[in-house]
Amino acid sequence: MTKIECYFISGSPPCWSVMLALAAKGLSYESRRLDNSKREQKSEAFLAINPRGNVPVLVEGTVTVRETNAILAYLETAYPDPPLLGTSPAQAAEIWQIVCEAGDHLRTPIGNASRPIFRGRAVEMADEIKQAIQPVYLELAAFDRDLADQPYLCGKTLTAADIAVYPAVMQLLRCATRDGAKALNLQVAPLAVHYRNLAAWARRVEKIPGYDGAYPPHWR
Amino acid sequence: MTKIECYFISGSPPCWSVMLALAAKGLSYESRRLDNSKREQKSEAFLAINPRGNVPVLVEGTVTVRETNAILAYLETAYPDPPLLGTSPAQAAEIWQIVCEAGDHLRTPIGNASRPIFRGRAVEMADEIKQAIQPVYLELAAFDRDLADQPYLCGKTLTAADIAVYPAVMQLLRCATRDGAKALNLQVAPLAVHYRNLAAWARRVEKIPGYDGAYPPHWR
Repeated sequence: MTKIECYFISGSPPCWSVMLALAAKGLSYESRRLDNSKREQKSEAFLAINPRGNVPVLVEGTVTVRETNAILAYLETAYPDPPLLGTSPAQAAEIWQIVCEAGDHLRTPIGNASRPIFRGRAVEMADEIKQAIQPVYLELAAFDRDLADQPYLCGKTLTAADIAVYPAVMQLLRCATRDGAKALNLQVAPLAVHYRNLAAWARRVEKIPGYDGAYPPHWR
Repeated sequence: MTKIECYFISGSPPCWSVMLALAAKGLSYESRRLDNSKREQKSEAFLAINPRGNVPVLVEGTVTVRETNAILAYLETAYPDPPLLGTSPAQAAEIWQIVCEAGDHLRTPIGNASRPIFRGRAVEMADEIKQAIQPVYLELAAFDRDLADQPYLCGKTLTAADIAVYPAVMQLLRCATRDGAKALNLQVAPLAVHYRNLAAWARRVEKIPGYDGAYPPHWR
């Protein structure tokens, strides 16, 4: 087996998703952390690997893949066991739909709400943050309902849907519990109070062997 | 075989991509056109099918799928022959990467540039349009270079990459040749003058059996 390298920025939800997928497939990999504060993803060295200058990027042998969902598809084809993208057409549809929607419906609005909080502008940007987060509540509530009857978002086993959603939810929790954000009362933390089933699900996702290795280093 | 239904808005590039994928797989389907000017995608009848109120949506038997790329993945799993998403991991990576990037790097900027033109505001919005289109030129030039040595974006056969890119390019051409846009001189039409290999590639894509049935009705 050739070496797998994963280029990532610590705390980036899509990067974390890729690393969780690697972990869930039992693959060992070398994680190559890029420092966003130094704009290392725009360095000459990294642009030689990915001219777009974005992460995550996965490198294995002669293959270099960018785009989170393309990486998930690559891993599934190269390492089909355990399957994360379904084995029947109906499962593939259900899983891919959540994986695709995780961008626009979770990562983007959570990113928009988080950025001012992480930059210490929670109070002055309170209205914008609350507006950005509004549609996310609907998503979380729907997931919470689904998880009343099943352990994972698409049924009995962990799939790429869980792996796409989990890091975004963790980012939201992290920003909601920042000192500066407490006054906003974002109604997500503690997760077990606001979304009981999602909280139990998160604990299940955290049992992926290799979970610790994928955890954002600067969150430790 | 159960009936396949495809809900679409005429001229929407992602809808067109789904219909081209159905055509390329030799599948017959019922196209269900929604009238954007009447906001039919937000009608009670359609929201019962897709509560998000967006298109494309594919329905087959008990399966209802939204999200263009999820529909492509579903079709590939249900109807693997001919393959559109690759048969090797390296192919899957290459194809999926283009499919995933078609959104942010083509459809979104082309949509941003097209909207004011289609609304008759080309002259007053000239600067914004030219700025929106700028990164698209880089994408088209890269595709044109790749197509110097191969008939399709990912090699010798038609794949989902071609199907994801083609409708966006056609939308750009359509808006660039509008009367109101001619003064902007967008440097794309005729395609054969500005991107010779892309023009030859477009003619190849247009040979997909069933191409005509997928063509936007209001463009005829």
